[in-house]
Amino acid sequence: MRISELVARTGVPLATVKYYLREGLLMPGEITSATQARYDEQHVRRLALVRALVARGLPLSQVKIVVDLIDNRDDPLFAVLGRAIEALPPYAPDSEPDDAAGARDHPRARRVLERLGQMYDPRFAAVVQLERALEALEAAGLSMTDERIDVYGRHIRGIAEIDLALLPSHPRQDTVEAAVLGTALYEPVLTAMRRLAHQDLAARIFLDDSHNQQEQQ
Amino acid sequence: MRISELVARTGVPLATVKYYLREGLLMPGEITSATQARYDEQHVRRLALVRALVARGLPLSQVKIVVDLIDNRDDPLFAVLGRAIEALPPYAPDSEPDDAAGARDHPRARRVLERLGQMYDPRFAAVVQLERALEALEAAGLSMTDERIDVYGRHIRGIAEIDLALLPSHPRQDTVEAAVLGTALYEPVLTAMRRLAHQDLAARIFLDDSHNQQEQQ
Repeated sequence: MRISELVARTGVPLATVKYYLREGLLMPGEITSATQARYDEQHVRRLALVRALVARGLPLSQVKIVVDLIDNRDDPLFAVLGRAIEALPPYAPDSEPDDAAGARDHPRARRVLERLGQMYDPRFAAVVQLERALEALEAAGLSMTDERIDVYGRHIRGIAEIDLALLPSHPRQDTVEAAVLGTALYEPVLTAMRRLAHQDLAARIFLDDSHNQQEQQ
Repeated sequence: MRISELVARTGVPLATVKYYLREGLLMPGEITSATQARYDEQHVRRLALVRALVARGLPLSQVKIVVDLIDNRDDPLFAVLGRAIEALPPYAPDSEPDDAAGARDHPRARRVLERLGQMYDPRFAAVVQLERALEALEAAGLSMTDERIDVYGRHIRGIAEIDLALLPSHPRQDTVEAAVLGTALYEPVLTAMRRLAHQDLAARIFLDDSHNQQEQQ
């Protein structure tokens, strides 16, 4: 398709499409003449990916990192996946060089991960995220009890298992793309679902309570 | 304790404590003389709450709403809880008056909630959050399949159940305070745990794969 059709199909303005082409966020089309190029479904998908990540709050510099990793065919898939997820927010407020981060201890996160028997790379940003989140809990006077770790751990594992089971296993670019999109886009779904589950459970409890109170009167 | 001790105990600077007092974010101390007041554990806890919500990105105007709801003893607890959770981010980009929101349809969120058999108030911000999150999925070419709804729904319900089970049921202010803090502060814990569960599962899968490949060679 021509660039005008790509604009019509995706709703991304022409100036933005050209900007993404210049910045390497969108792969070039197939040159058909001195002034024209042809685009296909991979361009439609890439634009959807870029728009989704921008809408999720990623700066374009981070989107570029993700896009380059999706197109990376040289490094081991597991390493590429890890680096792609690292490029997603939240970004650690004090991001340090790998060596310093690796040398640092994350005692709260380690306690949780060891209790759950999980393998982890201490340099992985999610370890720092977990440590920061647990620090914030403590600062507010809450604590992550063993009971909560066990229940959260079991259910989060169930969620992660379906995430991986539904991930396309080939071609390789699809795996990386789906992993990045899935991490970025299902997080707000899960957050909203938890709040709605609270509302549902609380409604049932409070309705029961007011029912019981009426019976006692 | 005197205000200087409150500063020492909490690490919140004196100027900030005075500002919070003026703005009604911190309840006044007990007046002991023309120039002095006495503070206690409730002030320490309130400062921890305010700091935790500010650190989570809440503007002070929203923190004030939460604080007023914690101190609200007149309205039904279920309504107060709902309004307190509403005050937390993310804020819907186009927040409309209640009437308009109530009149609006959220077809994607409704499909999920009806499949899960959950009660919900269509004016609740989390319904809009869920709708927006599902729209973003669709825009990126992903979809929320029934299989994923069922698995996510079951595990999120398990998480919500332990959340409610561990919530203090009295006094009433503690319930509201713990619900707000729990919603705000366990969300990043769960997000980080999901990413780390992905890493753990992926590591096991890829280690198995490379092991199998070596055996085949």
